[in-house]
Amino acid sequence: MTRIYLDHNATSLLRPEARDAMIAAMDVCGNPSSVHAEGRAAKAVVERARAQITAAFGADGADVVFTSGSTEGAALALSGRDLHGSALEHDAVRAWVREDLSVAPDGTVEVEEAAKSCLQLANSETGIIQTLPEGLAVTDATQAFGKLPVAFNWMGATMALISAHKLGGPKGIGAVVLKRGTELAAQIRGGGQEMGRRSGTENVIGIAGFGAAAEAAARDLDNGVWDRVAEFRNILENAVEASCPDTILMGKDARRLPNTSCFATPGWKGETQVMQMDLAGFAISAGSACSSGKVRASAVLTAMGFDEATAQSAIRVSLGPETTETDVLRFAEAWCAKQKKHRARSA
Amino acid sequence: MTRIYLDHNATSLLRPEARDAMIAAMDVCGNPSSVHAEGRAAKAVVERARAQITAAFGADGADVVFTSGSTEGAALALSGRDLHGSALEHDAVRAWVREDLSVAPDGTVEVEEAAKSCLQLANSETGIIQTLPEGLAVTDATQAFGKLPVAFNWMGATMALISAHKLGGPKGIGAVVLKRGTELAAQIRGGGQEMGRRSGTENVIGIAGFGAAAEAAARDLDNGVWDRVAEFRNILENAVEASCPDTILMGKDARRLPNTSCFATPGWKGETQVMQMDLAGFAISAGSACSSGKVRASAVLTAMGFDEATAQSAIRVSLGPETTETDVLRFAEAWCAKQKKHRARSA
Repeated sequence: MTRIYLDHNATSLLRPEARDAMIAAMDVCGNPSSVHAEGRAAKAVVERARAQITAAFGADGADVVFTSGSTEGAALALSGRDLHGSALEHDAVRAWVREDLSVAPDGTVEVEEAAKSCLQLANSETGIIQTLPEGLAVTDATQAFGKLPVAFNWMGATMALISAHKLGGPKGIGAVVLKRGTELAAQIRGGGQEMGRRSGTENVIGIAGFGAAAEAAARDLDNGVWDRVAEFRNILENAVEASCPDTILMGKDARRLPNTSCFATPGWKGETQVMQMDLAGFAISAGSACSSGKVRASAVLTAMGFDEATAQSAIRVSLGPETTETDVLRFAEAWCAKQKKHRARSA
Repeated sequence: MTRIYLDHNATSLLRPEARDAMIAAMDVCGNPSSVHAEGRAAKAVVERARAQITAAFGADGADVVFTSGSTEGAALALSGRDLHGSALEHDAVRAWVREDLSVAPDGTVEVEEAAKSCLQLANSETGIIQTLPEGLAVTDATQAFGKLPVAFNWMGATMALISAHKLGGPKGIGAVVLKRGTELAAQIRGGGQEMGRRSGTENVIGIAGFGAAAEAAARDLDNGVWDRVAEFRNILENAVEASCPDTILMGKDARRLPNTSCFATPGWKGETQVMQMDLAGFAISAGSACSSGKVRASAVLTAMGFDEATAQSAIRVSLGPETTETDVLRFAEAWCAKQKKHRARSA
């Protein structure tokens, strides 16, 4: 049986455009810092990708500083700044913020001092979208970029974190995007690459893949691909509600990502569901995929006011541009059958 | 005319084994932190590469912590520790060390407090090899790994920095290797990847390339490929000496990397030579390739006691496993012709 991958918020499939760009970049042998022809060719690959990302992210006139991903981006943009943040943020952000912003039951966050706060654009577990206040210091746009029509220049944030592997690029490459003129002290120092803000020989192949993926993702958005994904996500949720009416669907009425569905069955551990569905041929997740083996309640759901039993029982099903209606219907059928078995055993 | 690439210390050509491993890894869609089959497959790619690197670097029983390259590795291993170092180190290391170790005219460094010092294994500009004292805190093995038969477990150092793109792997991936049990606080925090020492979704494709390149590089070493490279390097230097007897050859009698030649023609700027040779079809460098456009004397050569005029006139020619005898002879001929023209103009 072909497996069905429904964990695109953990990491997405590599887009063919990214694959081609990466393979082409493998033949560019130079170091982008070298002044000879081979070095200039490598620099051209990096700068072309930077332009693609700038265009796709609506960041004309802003600076794009390549990092090894949003986790490094968070350290670069946030460490030592003691910004306000909330428990909804990804662990990579929570590592650096003062976690004192409260979360409403609907999953939204009220920011008081925008210039001293960090707020995600969309949540990785529930997909819930925040309204960013003007003048926000930092936004984590990792999950939103590529799935929502967003433009950095209209966001009102001074800096944004983005990552290639959430939109069809390779893992291990991302960027901090910032308004030109914003101060950003390098943490990784040495050769002075990335305008002195992030040293180290550039990940040329990864950068090429990021650029191509961002361009393709923007084209998909224009073409309405994510409207179709949202339809399939709704079909999935309707099927689950119809067949398993006691399931708690998170953020169903909230503004959220088109591809993300999060639902809970109190008493049935999310980890168990992930394993059972894995054996049945489906890849989903419980909470956000970080260091594996963690079994703990979702901090996102507890912050929204759900009890431990509910938070521990939540799973995330996240669709990609390739997901079909058949995929989600097969998942709903298989999952509901397991839920019924679980309820029968626990009854 | 086919170009001749003689700048392998700046960055090497991607090995076919690395290319194949990276293309294969493109089909592995999961996040290594996900527990489902796709995640486990991605984790297997990472762990296979870690085993290849461990074997190639003679680091059995040590920990290999993946980073985005040696520049990040230096920040991870060195920042906040105030170790002793010398002006021979790469800028990525110099950013963090107290630069108080003196350099002898032969390019060697005397370390007093090994446990509080950082010392490179081989210099990127001259290729000169250091004898590492037992108990050294950190060694930068970036240029040595893959070109010299070295084993971490015999080096006497507690930590070593290595990078894929100096041995035929992709740019943007490296590792800190450290004796098991050594403390190493994460600087990039969040998901807890890499045994809690370096968070962030792994660069799976780059890691696959690093592993394959390290394995291939170790095989090349076993097969005597670098002995042949050393022969060609000597042929190059003999040709230069015979045709341009006033050229200053650096470290000719020192223990050094088999592929590196550094020579100076006081009064003829290194940058000019790089540009002239680039136009003539050869890629070489002046000093180390970092942020481009720098025109300054080599800190390495001034530390060895050379005057500014000499240090500014040095170039580095670095060979790779693919370099042929014809390549180096063509280079020597072209370069000597340019040197004669330069001397004629300045006379």
